[in-house]
Amino acid sequence: MSKILDEVLAANADYADRFGKKGALAMPPARGFAILTCMDARLDPAKFGGLAEGDAHVIRNAGGRASDDAIRSLVISYKLLGTREWFVIHHTDCGMETFTDEIMRRLLASSLKTAKFGPDGWQDPGGEGSTEGEFVDWLTIRSQPESVAADVRRIRAHPLVPHTIPVHGFLYDVRSGRLSAVGEARALEKAS
Amino acid sequence: MSKILDEVLAANADYADRFGKKGALAMPPARGFAILTCMDARLDPAKFGGLAEGDAHVIRNAGGRASDDAIRSLVISYKLLGTREWFVIHHTDCGMETFTDEIMRRLLASSLKTAKFGPDGWQDPGGEGSTEGEFVDWLTIRSQPESVAADVRRIRAHPLVPHTIPVHGFLYDVRSGRLSAVGEARALEKAS
Repeated sequence: MSKILDEVLAANADYADRFGKKGALAMPPARGFAILTCMDARLDPAKFGGLAEGDAHVIRNAGGRASDDAIRSLVISYKLLGTREWFVIHHTDCGMETFTDEIMRRLLASSLKTAKFGPDGWQDPGGEGSTEGEFVDWLTIRSQPESVAADVRRIRAHPLVPHTIPVHGFLYDVRSGRLSAVGEARALEKAS
Repeated sequence: MSKILDEVLAANADYADRFGKKGALAMPPARGFAILTCMDARLDPAKFGGLAEGDAHVIRNAGGRASDDAIRSLVISYKLLGTREWFVIHHTDCGMETFTDEIMRRLLASSLKTAKFGPDGWQDPGGEGSTEGEFVDWLTIRSQPESVAADVRRIRAHPLVPHTIPVHGFLYDVRSGRLSAVGEARALEKAS
């Protein structure tokens, strides 16, 4: 067994031993909302957003982007499980800002090993690569406020998303742990 | 401001006030692994897997499926941010087992309101719907052990995934909080 596997299973055994009444939680999110955010290791949406088990759907991918798959998940979230309000949360110092489709495709064509980021940008160790990266849109980010606004717009305009669902855009600051509103949510704050 | 927005921002202010030294965390996951799991509200991967902020990438979608977007995220996770080991974790009592593409498309064509699940299956309130659901593969699940195994297989076989990355398949029991291995991970446990 790998060290990581061993550690995860030991932590899980501890968690299950203290599971208590959480086994009775219902499938639909108790607080009726969903969060779409980045996979970044520094983000813990349950902690930074105050979620207990059972409260809310959490969807995460590289960048927290409103990909087709994120929209698939959001539509299931409201249509079958009744969420009525959604958050799109990108964050500062995101890896998705450090590269472009062109760079990623070049790195993958050079090797399938992990690249290194330095003063001269991304450097690949070289080896045997793959051109398969050309068939993937990596959904990189040029500007966080713009990417949040674009993703909120895409979700709102989707033909399977009802106009009654508020979609709030936020930026999470990895240096402070604080959320700041982007676009409509800011307008809401001013209005309240 | 909505009640939910208010509550999330209040919880976030508390979190940021107690943020401490977490602002110094590096972008690459400190423990070098990634988890792909379901958006289900009852699952908290940080809690059930023992993750602190900064430890691991967490990717979540409806079902925890190895969608193209999840694979995009996993490839970024190892290629640019150095993860070396991945977990695919589906769970018992998953909403994705309660419907099929055909059912979802019919529900969406009937209305964009939330459907209800009862003894006769999914019932839609009716209203104005959309045929756009026909253009989405909803990635539903017939059997959890099969879906975990299929997703692990898909990830391992992807041309952008190096053979050196172990991909562990697990099922999380929402009644007990416990992970049980599916496929290779079980073989690893027996071997250790």
